[in-house]
Amino acid sequence: MAQRISIDKVNDPRVDDFRDLSTADRRPDRPGGRGLVIAEGTVVVRRLLASDYPVRAVLGVPRRVEELAPDLAGVDVPAYTTSAEVMALIVGFHLNRGVLAVADRAPRPRAEDVVARSRVVAVLEGVGDHENLGALFRNAAALGVGGVLLGPGCSDPLYRRSVRVSMGNVLRVPFAPLEPWPAGLTWLRENGFRVAALTPRADSITLRELAEDAGKVALLLGSEGPGLTAEALAAADVAVRIPMAEGVDSLNVATAAAVAFYELAGR
Amino acid sequence: MAQRISIDKVNDPRVDDFRDLSTADRRPDRPGGRGLVIAEGTVVVRRLLASDYPVRAVLGVPRRVEELAPDLAGVDVPAYTTSAEVMALIVGFHLNRGVLAVADRAPRPRAEDVVARSRVVAVLEGVGDHENLGALFRNAAALGVGGVLLGPGCSDPLYRRSVRVSMGNVLRVPFAPLEPWPAGLTWLRENGFRVAALTPRADSITLRELAEDAGKVALLLGSEGPGLTAEALAAADVAVRIPMAEGVDSLNVATAAAVAFYELAGR
Repeated sequence: MAQRISIDKVNDPRVDDFRDLSTADRRPDRPGGRGLVIAEGTVVVRRLLASDYPVRAVLGVPRRVEELAPDLAGVDVPAYTTSAEVMALIVGFHLNRGVLAVADRAPRPRAEDVVARSRVVAVLEGVGDHENLGALFRNAAALGVGGVLLGPGCSDPLYRRSVRVSMGNVLRVPFAPLEPWPAGLTWLRENGFRVAALTPRADSITLRELAEDAGKVALLLGSEGPGLTAEALAAADVAVRIPMAEGVDSLNVATAAAVAFYELAGR
Repeated sequence: MAQRISIDKVNDPRVDDFRDLSTADRRPDRPGGRGLVIAEGTVVVRRLLASDYPVRAVLGVPRRVEELAPDLAGVDVPAYTTSAEVMALIVGFHLNRGVLAVADRAPRPRAEDVVARSRVVAVLEGVGDHENLGALFRNAAALGVGGVLLGPGCSDPLYRRSVRVSMGNVLRVPFAPLEPWPAGLTWLRENGFRVAALTPRADSITLRELAEDAGKVALLLGSEGPGLTAEALAAADVAVRIPMAEGVDSLNVATAAAVAFYELAGR
């Protein structure tokens, strides 16, 4: 059972974990980074409490902490309550979601673990935008994708903004780096996955055609501007496209991923 | 042929259209509003120049205006060039896209015109978020949706942020208000559309089942939080859902729309 503790003073050392949150989510080897996982808002805090990340503490206004009572019942973490004003001064900016939780990073699964129980996995190359990455995890969770493998140039899914945009789904959908690159794609093939590169290339098959094959699929996705590198495209088994209206460039990467996840995994 | 004019002084009255852009896109009857349509960046400026909106002027750094030379060749609008520094002072904030165009609003199509040549239309209720609305138009353009009808509670697709997030596709995908509400849904039915409400309700059919019927579809979409109102749901012919993994609430409205557009229109 979480202990409820009221905080009156901004400089109370018990809530030090919640200071300077704009840098605290960086990895410990980066400037200002403490490697904390930060959850904002009741939905995401709830998902963090239900995850295997070791939660250090919760901080919120009384009303929000009260909403989390059932989720806090089973865990042994301090739940600090304070006013919205004191909370803003502790955190360093105004938080309209009213509640936060911080956790330590946990040992993450390896690529082997991510693929072991998945029929469809997403493999990302160069997806550096935190919001796109978070949205992609949200879509993966909703549409039944088993896991996400991160190639070069991807940002860390545990950055605060990605956690928030994902609605906490970076804490549920397993992910791991895929290394080395692009040899990892060959390794996926050896493990029974058809490696399908999503690209608007003309010599590609449609998503529908790919979905007719009910086997395991590793869907390779690149960043919105430059797309997949030539080496990633060359290492794929097949190029696949979403049929698009003439004269339209592309969809946002997380949106394109959602359409592909729906067709390949979500049915 | 657009006339190229160099601007040296921040207070040059010829570029008055480009001042206070954060309010200039509001309708003329709103505070600070001049009802201008504002395009940012070469992609969106290009789409504005190709649209039927009467373009008033272009303002950019020389390199960006040069990139637009083919698009400017056929139009009779002044193209002002200046430095990035002067441009930031005129506009009131730093614009990293380097080029802008402004146009007057044009008479827009009526709902009759939007549906006349469409097999699939989107009907929105309460989509007030500018980014979601812009993203939805981008997805509609990419996936072949014929038009968008706006029910109550939607924001104006011509706000600057919606124009930008849509990649200029609010200038290409026809839209119109659907009035009165919800009687307009009955009018759609009388015009041969099956009105399908996208909702996670359990008594709904799947998107795939809906797509098997090749007739005309009006896809009814609500805002992410509250969803569709009871009166909109009651006025629909059928409730339709995207199959989702257990324990996941929903997709973002523009993402859910993309999946539905793909299934209904994009194939």
